[in-house]
Amino acid sequence: MNTQEKTITTNVTTVTTKQIIKQVIKSWESQNKFVTTFFNKYADDVYLNEVSPGRNRAIYLLGHLISSNDGMIPMFGLGDRLFPHLELPFSISADKAVADIHSIAELKKNWETLNTTLSSYFNNMEPTEWMEKHTKVSEEDFAVDPLRNKLNVLIGRTNHQSYHAGQLAFLSPGV
Amino acid sequence: MNTQEKTITTNVTTVTTKQIIKQVIKSWESQNKFVTTFFNKYADDVYLNEVSPGRNRAIYLLGHLISSNDGMIPMFGLGDRLFPHLELPFSISADKAVADIHSIAELKKNWETLNTTLSSYFNNMEPTEWMEKHTKVSEEDFAVDPLRNKLNVLIGRTNHQSYHAGQLAFLSPGV
Repeated sequence: MNTQEKTITTNVTTVTTKQIIKQVIKSWESQNKFVTTFFNKYADDVYLNEVSPGRNRAIYLLGHLISSNDGMIPMFGLGDRLFPHLELPFSISADKAVADIHSIAELKKNWETLNTTLSSYFNNMEPTEWMEKHTKVSEEDFAVDPLRNKLNVLIGRTNHQSYHAGQLAFLSPGV
Repeated sequence: MNTQEKTITTNVTTVTTKQIIKQVIKSWESQNKFVTTFFNKYADDVYLNEVSPGRNRAIYLLGHLISSNDGMIPMFGLGDRLFPHLELPFSISADKAVADIHSIAELKKNWETLNTTLSSYFNNMEPTEWMEKHTKVSEEDFAVDPLRNKLNVLIGRTNHQSYHAGQLAFLSPGV
């Protein structure tokens, strides 16, 4: 292989890497859209219903997804959570365990702000950054398992979101 | 950049591309494990219950996931479906629409066989193959949107699986 051929190969693989990362980000964004569409479907008070008898309320799942996704900001070393006050009621506590002071309208605004912020961060990260360890894994553990990188967190959070999206789909507006 | 540097850069980006694809495959495999564990949790007849009142039965969702994942074999040009007879009752039809001739034990075996087959295919596919169009997209449409490749199908099916996994988690053994 001559120098020119090597340059072409390098460019092709770099383009491929960037494209794959773009696909992972797009998959996360498409899950976001699903959730956004879902929470614009009914009147606000419908989301106070449990998604299935005895299960989480839809409003709790929205808060939970915001808190979970917001956690990526510190995990990726990008700064502090945008909505740290949502961690206790929606990540640490179960539904109905903490006094309910959040309105669905307020959470929907938080959700939009967070998605815009995260998409902007994600679309500006280089492949090498995605391959770096996140802040919750130690250097030692990362050396043993280099798949515990930032991209893996995003893939995991996307699946987490799909998991709860499947549950939200059970919400009955009439109950 | 001299020739040696270029070679190193090429190798690094190739390794990165392969690692990312490996992460996407692992994410799919980890969703498979979740489903397998879930269907080994209760006695077989529990899976004949609806996961939530008026919703799909767990047995239907297992058949649905098998049929959906099995569809990746022809979509990736790897051959024919392993279980083509499951497409009508579990992908084309809604739950309870087709006479029920499938046992949970039989579906669990199909699920295992399919996962082993798909994992073997996936782990032997080269990055360039993952970037190719799948068989259900035309050359023209693929030229417009090159993200409609095989990797995108796998990412989508992984999310699809998480979506239904969230619903399966609602199954009550006592109902």
